[in-house]
Amino acid sequence: MTSGQQKKIILTGDRPTGQLHLGHYVGSLKSRVELQDEYEVFILIADMQALTDNARTPEVVSSNVLEVACDYIAAGIDPERTHIVIQSMVPELAELYMYLSNLVGVGRVERNPTVKAEIQQKGMTDHVPAGFFMYPVSQVADIVGFGADLVPVGDDQAPMLELTNDIVQTFESLYGGGALKPIEGMYPKVGRLPAPDGKAKMSKSLGNALHLDASDKQIKAFVNSLYPGIDGRQIADPGVIDGNVILTYLDAFDDDADGLEELKQRYVKGGVGDSELKKRLLPRLQALIEPIREKRIELNKDLNFVKQSVHKGTMAGREKAGRILSGVKSRMGINYAETLFKGIA
Amino acid sequence: MTSGQQKKIILTGDRPTGQLHLGHYVGSLKSRVELQDEYEVFILIADMQALTDNARTPEVVSSNVLEVACDYIAAGIDPERTHIVIQSMVPELAELYMYLSNLVGVGRVERNPTVKAEIQQKGMTDHVPAGFFMYPVSQVADIVGFGADLVPVGDDQAPMLELTNDIVQTFESLYGGGALKPIEGMYPKVGRLPAPDGKAKMSKSLGNALHLDASDKQIKAFVNSLYPGIDGRQIADPGVIDGNVILTYLDAFDDDADGLEELKQRYVKGGVGDSELKKRLLPRLQALIEPIREKRIELNKDLNFVKQSVHKGTMAGREKAGRILSGVKSRMGINYAETLFKGIA
Repeated sequence: MTSGQQKKIILTGDRPTGQLHLGHYVGSLKSRVELQDEYEVFILIADMQALTDNARTPEVVSSNVLEVACDYIAAGIDPERTHIVIQSMVPELAELYMYLSNLVGVGRVERNPTVKAEIQQKGMTDHVPAGFFMYPVSQVADIVGFGADLVPVGDDQAPMLELTNDIVQTFESLYGGGALKPIEGMYPKVGRLPAPDGKAKMSKSLGNALHLDASDKQIKAFVNSLYPGIDGRQIADPGVIDGNVILTYLDAFDDDADGLEELKQRYVKGGVGDSELKKRLLPRLQALIEPIREKRIELNKDLNFVKQSVHKGTMAGREKAGRILSGVKSRMGINYAETLFKGIA
Repeated sequence: MTSGQQKKIILTGDRPTGQLHLGHYVGSLKSRVELQDEYEVFILIADMQALTDNARTPEVVSSNVLEVACDYIAAGIDPERTHIVIQSMVPELAELYMYLSNLVGVGRVERNPTVKAEIQQKGMTDHVPAGFFMYPVSQVADIVGFGADLVPVGDDQAPMLELTNDIVQTFESLYGGGALKPIEGMYPKVGRLPAPDGKAKMSKSLGNALHLDASDKQIKAFVNSLYPGIDGRQIADPGVIDGNVILTYLDAFDDDADGLEELKQRYVKGGVGDSELKKRLLPRLQALIEPIREKRIELNKDLNFVKQSVHKGTMAGREKAGRILSGVKSRMGINYAETLFKGIA
């Protein structure tokens, strides 16, 4: 990065509906920590989005806003470099969302495969809140509202990228360029961690997640619950690789590739118990989680540092979103504060 | 009204997509002028709502914001008593809209008969902007966002009242009462003015409207174009009452009920030309429009008064909407600025 060149902007975030867990660490937190030097990163605590399907239990959302912020900082997000932003404290995003809503057909929103799948998964078929139905458009406002160049996404989030870029393109063709940026996806190197039983992804809502402040006892119980891919194997039998959750976790957390490869070769021959895999995994997870847990305990002793960090990040977010919204309104010719009312007090 | 008792609040408004016309005067402006002493009136220049189906031509909206404000003041709205508010300058409404969107099912929005009819009328069937689809919920945010007790409505706007009160009730049952008020409709005494040909309502979009700054020549041409309810009548023939647009206008604008009744009786007997009706109507419309036109010319000479008035009204609107939004967020437990971040700078 030569001097004078602006860092590219990344927007990422989480819905604050529970503490973060190991799946978040592998899927996003780890890379966010690595990216914060090279990029300007905005991490959005997406409480408004979380409320679209938690309106009946807003305390699930409100009680987790600061928890998630603690998780971020404990996991290595440096609030001096990364902006941690609370979505509901950036009203510019709500305004932007309304203007962008006019640039996409309701049929397109209706056909969004991600939302369709979530409606099924959440059993919402009878009552889909209108806000939930529309959240992909709100998400577009979040992305363009912070001027993101890049958004880390999973393979199933292609519709979000497409919707964003289509709306940006429509905006440009109607009102001219320069106010909003098209985005690119950043695809993770590591796939999603499976749940201990190997059947689903680790998920706070499914209650199968290892939190980032887990005790050694919880980590041990978690490791012991991991499914070895086959039922009732005797030690003498060959171990299986496919569907072996212990090995999937070792792949994610064991940096000693040669040692792991050697173990796998012995394991598939037979004579190696699952307990040997677990013994190898346990200290690695403990070593990963212990400093996060300790840091979290320290942060919890005086939440002022976390609060100040989030407040500062949120103000930086507002400032950025405010400038973008102002550009959007200028292009549309509706920035009356700067035109009709300039100089009027 | 005893002292200390708060005035009830009325919310009303227009989409700024053209100058106001005689239909607006009869249907709403006249009564707004009469109500501004007894009530606290917020008149919303609903530019965000207008953009939901004018996103491709935002200049239609932006160029009419101040025009509509001029029409208001010229027609007798007193900005010292009535708050003239530009919707897009009250971002609290956008926030409120997002929270309220979570309290109504998308199916309910989809079935809204008013929106369905408009989609047909505007020929939008292929491409309904998502923002337009959702505008009834945004309208609810406008109504409750200014703490309205009363909303002047036409007979076809019952769904708007119902949606508002259902959302208010859902909000109360989930988060407790006191933050949002249920509303009542105020139904107009006078029905809608027909178009000159008697076939539709007067409408800026249909181009059959008499603007409130019309010249005497334009008023005369307009009066001459009014349909007498029957084709090819000879003076000797009896005149018709039903479908006679000239008489409908006389009913609306002639205060001399006895004189008008006498004329009608002679007219139905025959021997009275339509020109006699028109001669009676013309000076009455001229007397109504002339002072509005003159006032408008005066306002146009120095728009600063209009701008200051609208700015002041908008700031009053923001203040009101800000307090209501703050109450809403408190009830939901998400007013972090007052809880998590109190004292943090």
